[in-house]
Amino acid sequence: MSMDITFLGTGSAYPSPHRGASALVLRTEGDCWLFDCGEGTQTQLMKSQLKASRITKVFISHLHGDHLFGLPGLLCTISLNWSSAPSQTPVDIYGPCGLRHFLRVALGLSGSQLLFPYAVHELEPTPDQCPPDAFLHPLAALPCDEHLHPQELPGRTLTLDSADECYTLLEDEHFLVKAFRLFHRLPSFGFAVQEQERPGRLNTQLLKELGVKPGPVYGRLKAGESVTLDDGRVVTPGQVLERPIPGRKVCVLGDCSALVGQAGVLHVCQGADLLVHEATLSDEHQERAVEHGHSTPSMAAEVARACRPRTLVLHHFSQRYKPAGLRVEEDAGSEADGSKDNGDVMELKRQAEGALQGTGVQVVLAEDFLTLSIPIKRP
Amino acid sequence: MSMDITFLGTGSAYPSPHRGASALVLRTEGDCWLFDCGEGTQTQLMKSQLKASRITKVFISHLHGDHLFGLPGLLCTISLNWSSAPSQTPVDIYGPCGLRHFLRVALGLSGSQLLFPYAVHELEPTPDQCPPDAFLHPLAALPCDEHLHPQELPGRTLTLDSADECYTLLEDEHFLVKAFRLFHRLPSFGFAVQEQERPGRLNTQLLKELGVKPGPVYGRLKAGESVTLDDGRVVTPGQVLERPIPGRKVCVLGDCSALVGQAGVLHVCQGADLLVHEATLSDEHQERAVEHGHSTPSMAAEVARACRPRTLVLHHFSQRYKPAGLRVEEDAGSEADGSKDNGDVMELKRQAEGALQGTGVQVVLAEDFLTLSIPIKRP
Ligand SMILES: [Zn+2]
Ligand SMILES: [Zn+2]
Ligand SMILES: [Zn+2]
Ligand SMILES: [Zn+2]
Repeated sequence: MSMDITFLGTGSAYPSPHRGASALVLRTEGDCWLFDCGEGTQTQLMKSQLKASRITKVFISHLHGDHLFGLPGLLCTISLNWSSAPSQTPVDIYGPCGLRHFLRVALGLSGSQLLFPYAVHELEPTPDQCPPDAFLHPLAALPCDEHLHPQELPGRTLTLDSADECYTLLEDEHFLVKAFRLFHRLPSFGFAVQEQERPGRLNTQLLKELGVKPGPVYGRLKAGESVTLDDGRVVTPGQVLERPIPGRKVCVLGDCSALVGQAGVLHVCQGADLLVHEATLSDEHQERAVEHGHSTPSMAAEVARACRPRTLVLHHFSQRYKPAGLRVEEDAGSEADGSKDNGDVMELKRQAEGALQGTGVQVVLAEDFLTLSIPIKRP
Repeated sequence: MSMDITFLGTGSAYPSPHRGASALVLRTEGDCWLFDCGEGTQTQLMKSQLKASRITKVFISHLHGDHLFGLPGLLCTISLNWSSAPSQTPVDIYGPCGLRHFLRVALGLSGSQLLFPYAVHELEPTPDQCPPDAFLHPLAALPCDEHLHPQELPGRTLTLDSADECYTLLEDEHFLVKAFRLFHRLPSFGFAVQEQERPGRLNTQLLKELGVKPGPVYGRLKAGESVTLDDGRVVTPGQVLERPIPGRKVCVLGDCSALVGQAGVLHVCQGADLLVHEATLSDEHQERAVEHGHSTPSMAAEVARACRPRTLVLHHFSQRYKPAGLRVEEDAGSEADGSKDNGDVMELKRQAEGALQGTGVQVVLAEDFLTLSIPIKRP
């Protein structure tokens, strides 16, 4: 099964002509899962090779506008360009409490009818995910008895499982998806997508040698059943199945200056194939970054050092960091404060690499429309 | 006083890489008034020569997402890039009932704090502005006792003045702005910006001949006062003032398939310098256009024929009409139904021109980033 990730917006705070607002797509066999949906995401999708109509799930890390304001328009546009018959399969949307109300108001007041149902599954944040003033205010304002939008199906409200400090969003034969908590100016979440382990392949060469002929017996062995041959011999799956194929793991963290429930987060992210972490400002600006609930490359690297992904992908760059190809000489002077941060996004990569020296973790800078494929793991 | 209009988005229904969603800016001496604010307007502004921070007033024609969903993000980004001290001057926002609630929810849930106050002045629609189902539903859902957003100042609720079938939005020494009703899938409005007449210039040559020397007397004459000279002669303003300079008029109509309160609308739009009217689909598709509450070029021309603007500007084109410069041969085939509409936006212009033959009304097709200047009128 092919699996890749495409960055649609890698800028912080707002969309600009150089960097879109936050959004990325994880694609598996054509199915698209969207992570965050800043303003302009639908236009970035049109510019990409991805099909908006293939989006089946949306994950919103937190309710800041640069991660959210593109969602009502995206849903409307998917519906407008809907080519098939009205669908019964809902688009599942996951995000912090408040998301349901936001969509109801935006879709309701704009008179938007969709050709597919949707459900919002809300994550209940805990008070330690943000400064106290930000926790109470927006949630207190929500009306408690609301009508669903005409195309809205009731969603679940997901609470923290204190055992693993995670929220279980979904589990099926292909994936287990969990969310975990991050500290930010508003409650923020990260998402861990764990592909399920798949049974190893049948060693057909060995089966031939054992005299087992292709047929229903193969399926039973593959399903983990021992079979007794006509001559009385018993063949066990362990004999003829190759080692199971480990599932891939992709972790996408929302804006944050720290993990909340660190042990649980590091456990669920351990050994990810890709760890996508924000790096809004360079190490020189750590104080300002933390003040705004953001991270620097070294802070992202610290998380990676603890959970050892194969690759750390940095994104959510301040708009002052232009894409590497676009830098012009006049931008390149040093800052007035004499720091080394001259708006060169490559410096963010160097800082993360420096902090990860000796770990073997690879660092990649995301750019709008960058696609990274996540190869199948070797058994 | 210079005056121009810049189109930031000329596409219908949603923003695309070829046409932004609806937004245009009327600029007078650096002051920017924004009409509609579809998703991506802030990015279009950044690509233009205009400064978002100069936006002092916003007019929203109706609550469809392609005219509205860019507004919360635009306000946040203006605030983020605010270079001066926090301001006391509010941004005045005008639009249909429901706009106030939408902004409260979007700004509130996203935890957005602004460095300037804003006020939303709501226009109360009448039931004849849309199909009956669209009138009741979204308004009924609004909570009636709400807290203002921390940066929100109380706004006015504007009702129809049955005398002229208009809403008076503001009147000061420079401008009189009225709104009027349009029929659409949701209640929609048009806006008529009337520059006030300015006094004519003093004929200084004549004053010299009359023996009147420059001084405070000039100011009194200019202000419309008669003055008695030392020798007893009386000089009246009528003698020495050139004819007053007529104010310019710009009318921007929201999405519509018809005017509501036609006599009043035609009166307030009469003789406009620019009449900006939508033309979503070509004449061949009039039935479909009307079904969706939209107009064709001939329908726009009919309005122009009745109120005789100097120039009729068409915009809000279906995304099937690519900008003239971007058309590629493969798009250019005829439609399956054999109609002449082959996606050529120039055909929309020809249709409007055909319907306006003999009227002297000029037709202009808007494109993203097109700027039209509105020259001062001759006395
Ligand atoms: Zn952000
Ligand atoms: Zn944020
Ligand atoms: Zn529209
Ligand atoms: Zn509309």
